[in-house]
Amino acid sequence: MKKLTVANIPGDGIGREVVPAATEVLNTIAAIHGGLKFEFTNFPWSCEYYLEHNQMMPDDGMERLKDFDGIFLGAVGNIKLVPDHVSLWGLLIKIRREFEQVINIRPAKVIKGVTSPLTNPRDFDLIIVRENSEGEYSEIGGRIYRGEDELAIQNAVFSRKGTERAMQHAFHLASRRKKRVTSATKSNGITYSMPFWDSVFQDVAKEYPEISTDSQHIDALSAFFVTHPEKFDVIVASNLFGDILSDLGAGIMGSVGIAPSANINVNGKYPSMFEPVHGSAPDIVGRGVANPIGQIWTAKMMLDHFGEEELGNTLLEVIESVTGAGFLTPDLGGNHSTKEITDEIISRLKELD
Amino acid sequence: MKKLTVANIPGDGIGREVVPAATEVLNTIAAIHGGLKFEFTNFPWSCEYYLEHNQMMPDDGMERLKDFDGIFLGAVGNIKLVPDHVSLWGLLIKIRREFEQVINIRPAKVIKGVTSPLTNPRDFDLIIVRENSEGEYSEIGGRIYRGEDELAIQNAVFSRKGTERAMQHAFHLASRRKKRVTSATKSNGITYSMPFWDSVFQDVAKEYPEISTDSQHIDALSAFFVTHPEKFDVIVASNLFGDILSDLGAGIMGSVGIAPSANINVNGKYPSMFEPVHGSAPDIVGRGVANPIGQIWTAKMMLDHFGEEELGNTLLEVIESVTGAGFLTPDLGGNHSTKEITDEIISRLKELD
Ligand SMILES: CC(C)[C@H](C(=O)O)[C@@H](O)C(=O)O
Ligand SMILES: CC(C)[C@H](C(=O)O)[C@@H](O)C(=O)O
Repeated sequence: MKKLTVANIPGDGIGREVVPAATEVLNTIAAIHGGLKFEFTNFPWSCEYYLEHNQMMPDDGMERLKDFDGIFLGAVGNIKLVPDHVSLWGLLIKIRREFEQVINIRPAKVIKGVTSPLTNPRDFDLIIVRENSEGEYSEIGGRIYRGEDELAIQNAVFSRKGTERAMQHAFHLASRRKKRVTSATKSNGITYSMPFWDSVFQDVAKEYPEISTDSQHIDALSAFFVTHPEKFDVIVASNLFGDILSDLGAGIMGSVGIAPSANINVNGKYPSMFEPVHGSAPDIVGRGVANPIGQIWTAKMMLDHFGEEELGNTLLEVIESVTGAGFLTPDLGGNHSTKEITDEIISRLKELD
Repeated sequence: MKKLTVANIPGDGIGREVVPAATEVLNTIAAIHGGLKFEFTNFPWSCEYYLEHNQMMPDDGMERLKDFDGIFLGAVGNIKLVPDHVSLWGLLIKIRREFEQVINIRPAKVIKGVTSPLTNPRDFDLIIVRENSEGEYSEIGGRIYRGEDELAIQNAVFSRKGTERAMQHAFHLASRRKKRVTSATKSNGITYSMPFWDSVFQDVAKEYPEISTDSQHIDALSAFFVTHPEKFDVIVASNLFGDILSDLGAGIMGSVGIAPSANINVNGKYPSMFEPVHGSAPDIVGRGVANPIGQIWTAKMMLDHFGEEELGNTLLEVIESVTGAGFLTPDLGGNHSTKEITDEIISRLKELD
């Protein structure tokens, strides 16, 4: 029996609705498989937790997480309770950084039954590899003066190691796919970090002569996501550019509610973390209509990471059979509830057994 | 007779095809008006100029431009000849900065006859007000070490004055439109500059109680441009975010070939500069198929700036009557040439006379 320990952090808002749904799906899959068992432990860390404890997680929070095989996160943030930069940096980004989850992987593809806002989405199937530990999201900077002379400075920091690592991951992924890597740059406007990014990309590309490459400025690239998404295979991007492109990827799929992501620790020292791209969506909390697909597709990425790619692929097929049959939450134009979608996925999984 | 002096800088690639086209249109408009006369002076500054002179413009280039009423630019850049950060910072960005063109205005709207890649573009009509002088496009930063320890650092610099100025411009524009301003932020990830941006936005908003406001993180905002562009009126954004959103705006309109922009000097000390959003498109140079609409719509923005809003509106109506009648270049799915589109616009302008 292969036992996998998972730390569930539902977090805020609809995170608390979709994490339990996806957990049920994972338990179903384990039962079908027979030789697999998940052991989930729940952590209530969230903005409400902050209000009580003045921190997003306890002092020994990271210590308590570090021996899990994986972390399964819902959504963090509720600006009515805690400013975003406090809640995010105290939980989501803290875990990404301290557990050296230096790569963030975010696929976007046409999903059966889900209407893309694009007239002709064709068959796009792309993956964004986002550098997840440095770049524009640095903790370096500050403000000086108050009033009319006030200035804020933020330093973007790019290391060769960090940049190379993300790019190598992208090339590696592309070698098992359509063998094409696009680099998201902005070296025409941002004159130190981005020319550096370009030069590392050129160096790394030389190690993978079988992969074709191109570089696109982030402005043009964003427009191409709308006009020609089918042209892309793997896109490697900085922390900020990867963030923007992955929401755009979710947008062209039809809803941010279905997009998954994986924060990968590549050196094996710490657990990786799996979280959907969507936020806590306070506006729809408690109505039972949160789209569980993002979290369930995220569960598929966790299965892949645990070496269970076959199960992962089966899960994605079942997701698509359910959406393809018209089981859709309101964000996708349907009128099914979180529970109905989840139950349908579970019952179709059981049928496969 | 109102005489307006304009410095034409066609620049590179298709800039040399569309600037003459739009200049002809402007001359036609002046002739129809009767009391208006443009005096164009051509400057050959470009990447080819660089190859000969080792600089993008002569030493006294700025001096030669400074007394013009406006600058009418085509496109700059040809990476086969000169690295982008050299050509752009030596010409386009140099003029934006030295002439204190601190605001960049970029509209995006549904244009008759132009097919949007969105299934349901509805009637979006938005304007991006981009801070054009500071932010992420700073000249501050550098690289240290070579090889595996190499680091690149880029400082984003936001001043209260620069930020306020862009925001005030946005509120001012909104007060003559749908009275709504959206701020593009990323304060959940970028922890000094963006919370500062948010706080300035809150302060400026207080001066305009009649304008409704919201703040959206750039990732979510990019997705909304695809899923709900009709929800926006005026969007105020930093240099980088404005750059990304305006290409996305062009993308959802149907082609970057039609999008215009104005770089506004707000203190009246120097000329403003008008340039389309598209680049020099080396791949289609010399084939006579460059879309002139971006440059001609840009001419409309220059007319507006010169206080000739009525003429500007007429020009945009004529542009739409031409595209609406199916006169389209290949980028829009048509098979008309630059010259055919331009001639049609000119002949319809003359008919109005
Ligand atoms: C060419 C480049 C430097 C420029 C910019 O980023 O400002 C362009 O993309 C634009 O939007 O005018
Ligand atoms: C919430 C925010 C800090 C986060 C990010 O920008 O990384 C989110 O947008 C994401 O993409 O996971």
